[in-house]
Amino acid sequence: MANGDDIQDRLVTLKSTPILPIPGIRLASAAARIKKTPGQKTPTPDMVLMELAEGSRTAAVFTQNAFCAAPVILARGHLQITAPRYLLINSGNANAGTGEAGLADARTCCEWVAAVFGVSVESVLPFSTGVIGERLPMEQLRAPIESLSRSLREEAWMEAAAAIMTTDTRPKVASREVVLDDRPLRVMGMAKGAGMIRPDMATMLAFIATDAKVKSRDLQFCLEEAVASSFNCITVDGDTSTNDACVLIATGQARGRELKPGTVHWDAFAQAVTEVSVELAQAIIRDAEGATKFVTLQVVGGKDLAECREVAYTLAHSPLVKTALYASDPNWGRILAAVGRARVPGLRAEEISITLGEVDIVTRGEPAPDYTEEKGQTAMSQGDIAVKISLGRGAAQATIWTSDLSHEYVTINAAYRT
Amino acid sequence: MANGDDIQDRLVTLKSTPILPIPGIRLASAAARIKKTPGQKTPTPDMVLMELAEGSRTAAVFTQNAFCAAPVILARGHLQITAPRYLLINSGNANAGTGEAGLADARTCCEWVAAVFGVSVESVLPFSTGVIGERLPMEQLRAPIESLSRSLREEAWMEAAAAIMTTDTRPKVASREVVLDDRPLRVMGMAKGAGMIRPDMATMLAFIATDAKVKSRDLQFCLEEAVASSFNCITVDGDTSTNDACVLIATGQARGRELKPGTVHWDAFAQAVTEVSVELAQAIIRDAEGATKFVTLQVVGGKDLAECREVAYTLAHSPLVKTALYASDPNWGRILAAVGRARVPGLRAEEISITLGEVDIVTRGEPAPDYTEEKGQTAMSQGDIAVKISLGRGAAQATIWTSDLSHEYVTINAAYRT
Repeated sequence: MANGDDIQDRLVTLKSTPILPIPGIRLASAAARIKKTPGQKTPTPDMVLMELAEGSRTAAVFTQNAFCAAPVILARGHLQITAPRYLLINSGNANAGTGEAGLADARTCCEWVAAVFGVSVESVLPFSTGVIGERLPMEQLRAPIESLSRSLREEAWMEAAAAIMTTDTRPKVASREVVLDDRPLRVMGMAKGAGMIRPDMATMLAFIATDAKVKSRDLQFCLEEAVASSFNCITVDGDTSTNDACVLIATGQARGRELKPGTVHWDAFAQAVTEVSVELAQAIIRDAEGATKFVTLQVVGGKDLAECREVAYTLAHSPLVKTALYASDPNWGRILAAVGRARVPGLRAEEISITLGEVDIVTRGEPAPDYTEEKGQTAMSQGDIAVKISLGRGAAQATIWTSDLSHEYVTINAAYRT
Repeated sequence: MANGDDIQDRLVTLKSTPILPIPGIRLASAAARIKKTPGQKTPTPDMVLMELAEGSRTAAVFTQNAFCAAPVILARGHLQITAPRYLLINSGNANAGTGEAGLADARTCCEWVAAVFGVSVESVLPFSTGVIGERLPMEQLRAPIESLSRSLREEAWMEAAAAIMTTDTRPKVASREVVLDDRPLRVMGMAKGAGMIRPDMATMLAFIATDAKVKSRDLQFCLEEAVASSFNCITVDGDTSTNDACVLIATGQARGRELKPGTVHWDAFAQAVTEVSVELAQAIIRDAEGATKFVTLQVVGGKDLAECREVAYTLAHSPLVKTALYASDPNWGRILAAVGRARVPGLRAEEISITLGEVDIVTRGEPAPDYTEEKGQTAMSQGDIAVKISLGRGAAQATIWTSDLSHEYVTINAAYRT
């Protein structure tokens, strides 16, 4: 298991975000020695408990991977039965590919929490992230889980965000405050993820909370909209995780009336949730395994959203495009070749234009008249790179964010388990 | 431009294949200084001319990339018009993404050949491979092209195979001789390719010749069958090239009657063509950029071929699976996660089994009872690794070959143009 000390600093561009505690949400973290941190005397925290005040509503989306992990199966089921009161999260072990035994382990952890607080086992949702295919070290977990109840605090977001990290090099939090009719409303979130990142209708682990009053079905709608333009627009390596989950909790403890879609108040609230989601999603890409670049891929002029996204993801997953980005090499031939192999029928080279930052590279299939290798080189040498592809055949557009493919990426992933 | 001296030796497992010259085929190579070989006094050959005796039939398949290179566009057109007599191949520059000017350059090269031999320009097919997006250095090409006519030889296959290399570290040739009714028949081929390899109905450059007598439409059928189970079953990086082409020439100069599909003679001939194609395709994977492993991915028990191939390619393109292979880490969780995100509806974890070499790893979704990390480690440490996935829901199966993702892959592709 890699940790922050082992890995060179990745792009440090995360805005420092104030922690805005959410009334009705308390957090605690503890070390259960699931994460292996050789040579380190103090074990790294790897368990988090989130307490949701009674009356909170919870929306969630989960991975679309056909083989989802035991905690995902259990959390989905529990959500159908009752409103969650506690979220139990561990890092260092994904409890995926563990069959029936893994499902029993996850249930036992929920039972321990339920017993401490005198709630039903279904009101506890489990989340796990880390190595796939190993059983949870159950004998190490009971005492830390029970200890969590004694350190719950409203302010503990940053410690919790650190405890859920795996190959992440830094905690990821984001917050917004919006004032509606003189009444402030808060949205606060945390996320983890640096590899096996290609969320599909969900994300790596992300937990967002608000004190707004919102109906459950409206909250789910709000989450799905936010995820569609944030976590579902990022990719590191195309590898959708077995454990992705994104949760949005509304404690309803803010003053003011219930928010309803179709009102200006709703729009302001939904925008705050989306902004927090985008900030967390982009923070995952900035902390991507081995990343040296933050790349915005914008595809415009498509016939529909689907073909714009197909082209964008083909570029984002091309090892040749990703290594050219790493080398700061304006090798637009690789970009053109990747666009041409995207699963989009009827693309025509004569209609494609490519812009790198402010530099026109290809105009309608031909090298742009003003283009020079020096201009391309300058644009590629930035840490933040924007590549814009115009398909020249419609009005649809899509934007996704990704990282480059570096030696460090190979080092991290050739060493992850050892 | 990387060459054999710059890159560490890749897997050296290509069988030494005898050169079996094909009556009716002569080859020559020359150096036109298209390939940049800094620090090397003698320029590396980078142009090849193949002469096809009158009466030869030629079949060809080309890249499905929407943006195919100028020589591909021209070669496709010329094939519609007349039977080819000369193939002109250059390495070091792909003449792709060069618009109308690139098309004119390719046509001019064909004209030069046509003038030397007094044939029509349409009887010359151009092929190019190398960097995308740069014009051919036309002023350097005329003299070498004209000189090629003076050194044509039947035996020059190995020199030609070397001259078409780009990031390849060694020439790739394969041959078979079959004896039908006491009359020998030959199949001889050469190919190049090490990166931007994910052939789609075609391949990187491959040229196969036989002295068999075969009708043109039967030859095309034979080529498409052979390609389907050879070049179309390999991938290095998922990046389908703009320049892929595979050509099969029958000079008809062997003794004996014309071969016809549906006969035992045809079957023996077609098998020889397929074997040469498979040997060349596997040689590309063994020489893949940065490869340290040759990986056979077999997916069995699928409902149809398409879903087996989808699962196999999802595994083959997963950076996490490829880096685990590089690390010799039996991290089967990554394999399971990749299978689960393949675009195959209704896959069930409980039906999936995974075998690594001879070692059962996952049986019907659960860790195999006898599995130990040591057994997995031993299987993964081989240079040749076979991964078998059983989907447990049908009788279809597919096999593809791929390479791992190493530091060297990143080094090669971060340095290719510089």
